Amino acid sequence: MGRLTTRTPVTRIAFDESGAAVRRRPDTLAVEEPLEIRVGGEPVTVTMRTPGHDIELAAGFLTGEGVLTSSADFRSAIHCGGPGTGSVLPAGFSDEPSAQNTYNVLDVTLAPGVALGIADIARNFYTTSSCGVCGTASIEQVGKASRFDVGTDAVTLGAASLAGLPDALRAGQDVFDKTGGLHAAALFDAVTGDLLVLREDVGRHNAVDKVVGWAVLNDRLPATGTVLQVSGRASFELVQKAVMAGIPVLSAVSAPSSLAVELAVSSGLTLVGFSRGRSLNVYSRADRVVT
Amino acid sequence: MGRLTTRTPVTRIAFDESGAAVRRRPDTLAVEEPLEIRVGGEPVTVTMRTPGHDIELAAGFLTGEGVLTSSADFRSAIHCGGPGTGSVLPAGFSDEPSAQNTYNVLDVTLAPGVALGIADIARNFYTTSSCGVCGTASIEQVGKASRFDVGTDAVTLGAASLAGLPDALRAGQDVFDKTGGLHAAALFDAVTGDLLVLREDVGRHNAVDKVVGWAVLNDRLPATGTVLQVSGRASFELVQKAVMAGIPVLSAVSAPSSLAVELAVSSGLTLVGFSRGRSLNVYSRADRVVT
Repeated sequence: MGRLTTRTPVTRIAFDESGAAVRRRPDTLAVEEPLEIRVGGEPVTVTMRTPGHDIELAAGFLTGEGVLTSSADFRSAIHCGGPGTGSVLPAGFSDEPSAQNTYNVLDVTLAPGVALGIADIARNFYTTSSCGVCGTASIEQVGKASRFDVGTDAVTLGAASLAGLPDALRAGQDVFDKTGGLHAAALFDAVTGDLLVLREDVGRHNAVDKVVGWAVLNDRLPATGTVLQVSGRASFELVQKAVMAGIPVLSAVSAPSSLAVELAVSSGLTLVGFSRGRSLNVYSRADRVVT
Repeated sequence: MGRLTTRTPVTRIAFDESGAAVRRRPDTLAVEEPLEIRVGGEPVTVTMRTPGHDIELAAGFLTGEGVLTSSADFRSAIHCGGPGTGSVLPAGFSDEPSAQNTYNVLDVTLAPGVALGIADIARNFYTTSSCGVCGTASIEQVGKASRFDVGTDAVTLGAASLAGLPDALRAGQDVFDKTGGLHAAALFDAVTGDLLVLREDVGRHNAVDKVVGWAVLNDRLPATGTVLQVSGRASFELVQKAVMAGIPVLSAVSAPSSLAVELAVSSGLTLVGFSRGRSLNVYSRADRVVT
């Protein structure tokens, strides 16, 4: 776990009636490092992430882009730190963070026949060649891109167990209590409430990519009958990632955006926001939430 | 302000001793829409943002990429919603959100002689052609890229007034109380504590880009003697944006990342985190904070 956090000296200033007290002490920080994801040697994206589970991160990112739907689509990955130091890590390997791993470039090899439009990915889903990027166009593109239909998922879940997921997420977060700086995402079984996987990252999207990457590499897609619980807000991109992974329920501790709600409604995903233990809001497909 | 928020029906479930109470009611959401930024007709990036202050957003983004340092570098922008509907908006115009503006593509024209390496921007700062992206390389590139040196800024500021900035930020946020969904960034005069500009957005980086865009279009760069207060965490990219704008002090309500602290130390920026009214942490250049 050494790479998830690091220590730094900090000047702590606290105020009380008598004035300001200044203290020099060590503080724990969440580690942030760039990761360049390549496919077949071609750079695809760079993300600022917390090291660890990098292969899951890359696999989840590629799932969100419509490239992967199962572990069969993914052949291997080379984690290269410099000339001659690359190591081949096959699909399904354990990429737990280690003190030795300082590599920030990951080269993914797809299975034969799996196509990647790098130019499309680089320019992103919503970039169009015509002068008309809009939310509706984005939603239509996502609807077309996903090979899974979350709208037909017959899952139902109890409101009380749904409301308990943020606490379960927090209980599973190793690093947050130390640093206050990490987002978390976790996949739960909607019926049993069992935690399937939990990942932390300085970036909200990365935490979700790592969870989705775990699911695709373990052949859990479409992730029917699951709930994706996230620590922050629900943006359009998080709903998009859930839809691309066939996850029928996305629950956020904080607010959703307008476009997140629109995409959830149009794709039949159950979107929950402001899930705070004593109450929660359901923005779409509330029929799945049983009270 | 119509485009900043929108209304949607929501199913609200609240729990008490007697069980779950379900209520259908309207809820206010922060608007999120994609914006494609073009320069000279070439797509450069797409960001999911809250509409409004789009020209500032584009100008701030381009400042962060090292393209702009003053309003003279920026010639005009066309906000185009479709063939024939574009309107030319010169630098310094007021792009307040309006109910009519649904445009999500902005084409920036730079002044003659201002160079833009679109390929470089598209591939991002930290992407290198060699197999060695790392935090240190990123920091070196930022150090080279900025035309301003925040390390030499002689500003000092009182710890108590610094601690009051999060409250001042919150007081200036129009939308957050309605939606709970918006990040904010504001520039304050370090000496007087006066609020210079405040912007809100669903994206943390966008809020900072809008503030920096305001500054560059108003010829306030380098923004010596100012403090950039942000509502969330301090990531590497936010420190980078501050350094590129010549802002000597960045204060965050929440945690900084490891790479944010490293970049702050190496560039001589004063980085403040966990600024919570009664206390705060100074991670670099604490000599500027007077108790």
